[in-house]
Amino acid sequence: MNTHQHFLDRAVELGKIHMDTGAGGPFGAVIVRDGQIVAEGWNSVLADQDPTAHAEIVAIRRACRALGDFSLEGALLYSSCEPCPMCLAAIYWARLDGLYYAACQQDAADAGFDDAYIYRELSKPWPERALKAEQGAADEARRVFQLWCAKADKVQY
Amino acid sequence: MNTHQHFLDRAVELGKIHMDTGAGGPFGAVIVRDGQIVAEGWNSVLADQDPTAHAEIVAIRRACRALGDFSLEGALLYSSCEPCPMCLAAIYWARLDGLYYAACQQDAADAGFDDAYIYRELSKPWPERALKAEQGAADEARRVFQLWCAKADKVQY
Repeated sequence: MNTHQHFLDRAVELGKIHMDTGAGGPFGAVIVRDGQIVAEGWNSVLADQDPTAHAEIVAIRRACRALGDFSLEGALLYSSCEPCPMCLAAIYWARLDGLYYAACQQDAADAGFDDAYIYRELSKPWPERALKAEQGAADEARRVFQLWCAKADKVQY
Repeated sequence: MNTHQHFLDRAVELGKIHMDTGAGGPFGAVIVRDGQIVAEGWNSVLADQDPTAHAEIVAIRRACRALGDFSLEGALLYSSCEPCPMCLAAIYWARLDGLYYAACQQDAADAGFDDAYIYRELSKPWPERALKAEQGAADEARRVFQLWCAKADKVQY
């Protein structure tokens, strides 16, 4: 059994364990750097009453806390399922080096999870999305962005 | 001044205040239900060393905590900027009724934020994405999904 397989199995196992306790859906994730587990996460949408508490988001937050860094460059994510768009975007923001996943988007859809639907929504322009959105107050927001650009002591993230 | 304008202004103001304190980038968000603010959020990526601590995610988590519910059906989100894909997907997961935003994706790009890049990445198939990904252990993960489907006491979210 190779190392990647070992960490993927652990991600799947975490999903199973915490589904059984009622924490949330059947999803687990593990973040690994230099061959060592830095953090583990599992879906806790129900336990935490938090729709953003997907396994990958939880694992990323814990790994960043453990390492004291908002960047996970050099680390890998192992997930029991292909990430939903929220989690995939979070993987980009966290600058993870790569991803190993077990079940795929279609498997998630078959189990009743909306990942594929949200991927389709994100790919549409605003007028075609189910979510209604309206723009306003753009000038003042842009002025704050200009202050950010001019801010001498800012940390780029 | 209409009500939507008032809440948008507050979202922009929150971004400015917490950019100035060094909490993170210049982004704020407000969640409103029945004309009342339920929760406020701002980017705290730097203060919390958390790449997922975008204003909208923080506001969603706080609103769910305040209401004791993983669903924000019936509520609106006001954001100082068009949401990045992580936050937009979170808005779908949270079942918010609608969105008002100030600055747009291009404004964020001009200020050095990668939202547009991540939207493009998410719209690609795996082989074309910058993030390297590999699949494995799918059978065991699918078996856990089947257990989820068969779970008698599960809560759908």
